[in-house]
Amino acid sequence: MKKITVNASRVYDIHIGDGLLGEAGALVRDAVAGGHVAAIISDDIVWGLYGKRLAETLEGSGYRVVEYVISHGEIFKNGDNFLRILNFLALKKLARTDVVVALGGGVVGDLAGFVAASYMRGVPFVQIPTTLVAAVDSSVGGKTAINLAAGKNLAGAFYQPNIVICDTSLLSTLTQQAFREGCTEVIKTGALGDATLFESLETPIKQQLEGVIARCVEIKRDIVTQDEFETGNRKLLNYGHTVGHAIELLSGYETPHGYAVAAGMAIVTRAAARLGICGEDCLQSVLRMLRLYGLPENTDYDAESLAEACLSDKKRDGQSLTMVFPARIGECILKKVPACELEGIISMGLEEM
Amino acid sequence: MKKITVNASRVYDIHIGDGLLGEAGALVRDAVAGGHVAAIISDDIVWGLYGKRLAETLEGSGYRVVEYVISHGEIFKNGDNFLRILNFLALKKLARTDVVVALGGGVVGDLAGFVAASYMRGVPFVQIPTTLVAAVDSSVGGKTAINLAAGKNLAGAFYQPNIVICDTSLLSTLTQQAFREGCTEVIKTGALGDATLFESLETPIKQQLEGVIARCVEIKRDIVTQDEFETGNRKLLNYGHTVGHAIELLSGYETPHGYAVAAGMAIVTRAAARLGICGEDCLQSVLRMLRLYGLPENTDYDAESLAEACLSDKKRDGQSLTMVFPARIGECILKKVPACELEGIISMGLEEM
Repeated sequence: MKKITVNASRVYDIHIGDGLLGEAGALVRDAVAGGHVAAIISDDIVWGLYGKRLAETLEGSGYRVVEYVISHGEIFKNGDNFLRILNFLALKKLARTDVVVALGGGVVGDLAGFVAASYMRGVPFVQIPTTLVAAVDSSVGGKTAINLAAGKNLAGAFYQPNIVICDTSLLSTLTQQAFREGCTEVIKTGALGDATLFESLETPIKQQLEGVIARCVEIKRDIVTQDEFETGNRKLLNYGHTVGHAIELLSGYETPHGYAVAAGMAIVTRAAARLGICGEDCLQSVLRMLRLYGLPENTDYDAESLAEACLSDKKRDGQSLTMVFPARIGECILKKVPACELEGIISMGLEEM
Repeated sequence: MKKITVNASRVYDIHIGDGLLGEAGALVRDAVAGGHVAAIISDDIVWGLYGKRLAETLEGSGYRVVEYVISHGEIFKNGDNFLRILNFLALKKLARTDVVVALGGGVVGDLAGFVAASYMRGVPFVQIPTTLVAAVDSSVGGKTAINLAAGKNLAGAFYQPNIVICDTSLLSTLTQQAFREGCTEVIKTGALGDATLFESLETPIKQQLEGVIARCVEIKRDIVTQDEFETGNRKLLNYGHTVGHAIELLSGYETPHGYAVAAGMAIVTRAAARLGICGEDCLQSVLRMLRLYGLPENTDYDAESLAEACLSDKKRDGQSLTMVFPARIGECILKKVPACELEGIISMGLEEM
C-alpha cells in the first residue's frame, strides 16, 4: 500500500494498493467531514463489476447510497449527462456536506468531478479510478470536464477531490485495449518527467503496477502542485495530447484516447527530431516503447485536417498554441507555435523516414 | 465616480458612476491582459437598449465582438442555455485569454459567470450590471449559478470577475417592478449590515443611487472577502432568501425574486420577533421600509408547502438548515434550525398580529 499526499488548493491523499475497495467506506468517512448521503456515479460496465461492493462498504460506514449509472464511453461525457446528474442529485436532496463518489475511468471521473464542482457550487468529491489511465492521469490534478460538440474537455472546472482510492486489483478486469491506453499515459509520464521510470517500462507494467502507478502519480503531483491552474509547466503533461485530441475529434471519438495520444506523441516526437529539438535516439526510444505496448505510431489523417482540428482545441492562445516537444527521454519543453506554422510541423511529424 | 477594490481570490475593481458604459472598452482592456475576442452575453431587452453602445466601445478598444442574446427572464437561467452558450463560444473559437462580458441583470450575470467559469475551465469575465439588484448584489462576490428543475441556483461556481462596471444611468430604463426588486436587496443590506444605510433609505434610493450602490457594495464586499466560499458569515447575505427562494419555487418563478425575498424578510423577521430574537421595533422598521418601497410583506403559500420547498433549497446542511434572523436593524445572526422545526417557525412568520 502506498499513500501520496497532494498539496493543492485542497490537501488530499491518494491511496494505491491491492484490495482497497473493501476499505473505501472507512477511508471516505475519514477524508470527508460530515455528510449523510454518498452519490456514486459510475458507468454500466464498472457498476456491474464493482458497484455492489462499493455501495456495501459505504453503507457499512453509515452512508445512504444513491447511484447514477451512465452508459460507458467517451461520448457520454457530455453536457446532457452533466445536467441530468445535477438534477438527479437535487431530486435525491443531496446536501452541501454530502459526497459524490466517482467509480470508473476518466470519463466517469471527469464528468462526476465537474458535477461535484458545480452542484451547490461544490460538494465533497471522491475518486475511485478503475482504469490505468484514470489511476495515473485523470484522477490526479483536479481537472474535471465535459466534451462539447466542438471538441473534447472544452468545459469544466479545476476541482480537487477529498481523497483518491486506487485499488490496483480493479485493473485486472480491464480489456487489453483499455489497459494499453493506460500504458500510453505511463510512457508519456516517463518520457516527460523521469528517464528511470521510462526505462523501467521494459519490464511489463502489469508486473509492477503499484510501483509504476505511484511513481506516475508523484511525477504528476509535483508538476500539478507547482501549477494548479495550468498557466505554465503543467502544459508539459499535454505531451502528445494536442495532436491526440485532434485525432480523436476527427474520428468522432471512435479512436480511443490512449491510442490517439500515442500517435500524437509519435508525431510530435518525429517533428521534434526533424526540427533538431531532440535527437534521433530519443525518437527511436519513444517509438520502440509504443511498439512494445502495442500502441499506434501514426495516423491516417492528413496534416491539414489535423491542424484545423488542433485549432479548435482549447490549448491554443489566440493566434498561437503551446505545443509540447521532447528534448530527451525524461524531459519535455513547451514551444509557442504560430497557428500558421502548425500544419507544416504536423506534416513533418506524419512523415516516416 | 466611485471605485471599490475587492480582495477575493482574484483582486478586482468595481467602478460605479454615471456614463461609464462609454468607457467600458478602455476599462476592460485595462483589466484583462491579452485577448482578442469579447463575447457579450445579454438578454433581448438589455441588448436592444445598450448592446450596440457596448459593442462599439469594445471594438474601439480592439476587440472582435460576438454576442449571444437570451430571452429575458429567470426561467432562461437554465442548463440548456448554459450548454448552448458554451457551444457558441467554442464555435466562435473563443480562446482561453478572451473575455466573456455579462451585460444585464442577475439572470444574465449568473448564467454568463457560470459559463465564463466553465469554458476551458475559466476565462476572463466582466460584469456590466444593468439592474439595481445586479449592481448591489449579484455582481458582487463571485457567485454564479443556473437553476435546476428542483430549485434555484442549485448548480454553479464561485468565480470572480476581472472587473465590474456599473453605469448608474443604465438603471433609468428599469421598470418599476425591476427597480423595486433592487430596493429589496438595498433594504436587506442595510438591515443586516448598516443601520445608518438603512435609515438613509427614508430618502428615495433613486435620489442617491451612486452613494447607495457604493455603500451596499462595500458592505457585501466586506462580508464576502471574509468568507469567499460561504462557510460562515457570508450566509448572513441570505436574509430573507431561504423563504424567498421557496416562494419563487412554489410560484414556478412567477413571483419576482425581489418580491419573494421581501416577503421572505418580512416572514423571518416576524418569526424573529415572536421568538424574541429581535424586538418589535425592529420588525416594524423592516415592515415600514418594505411598505415605503411598495414591496410585499407576506405570502399566500402555507407553512407546510414553504417548509418543504425550503428543504429542497441548497442552504440546508443535512438534517438542518441555517437561517438568518435579524437581531436589530444593522445586525443579523445565523441559527441552525432542525428540519422538523422549520414549518413551525415559518408558520409563526406568516401570522400577522
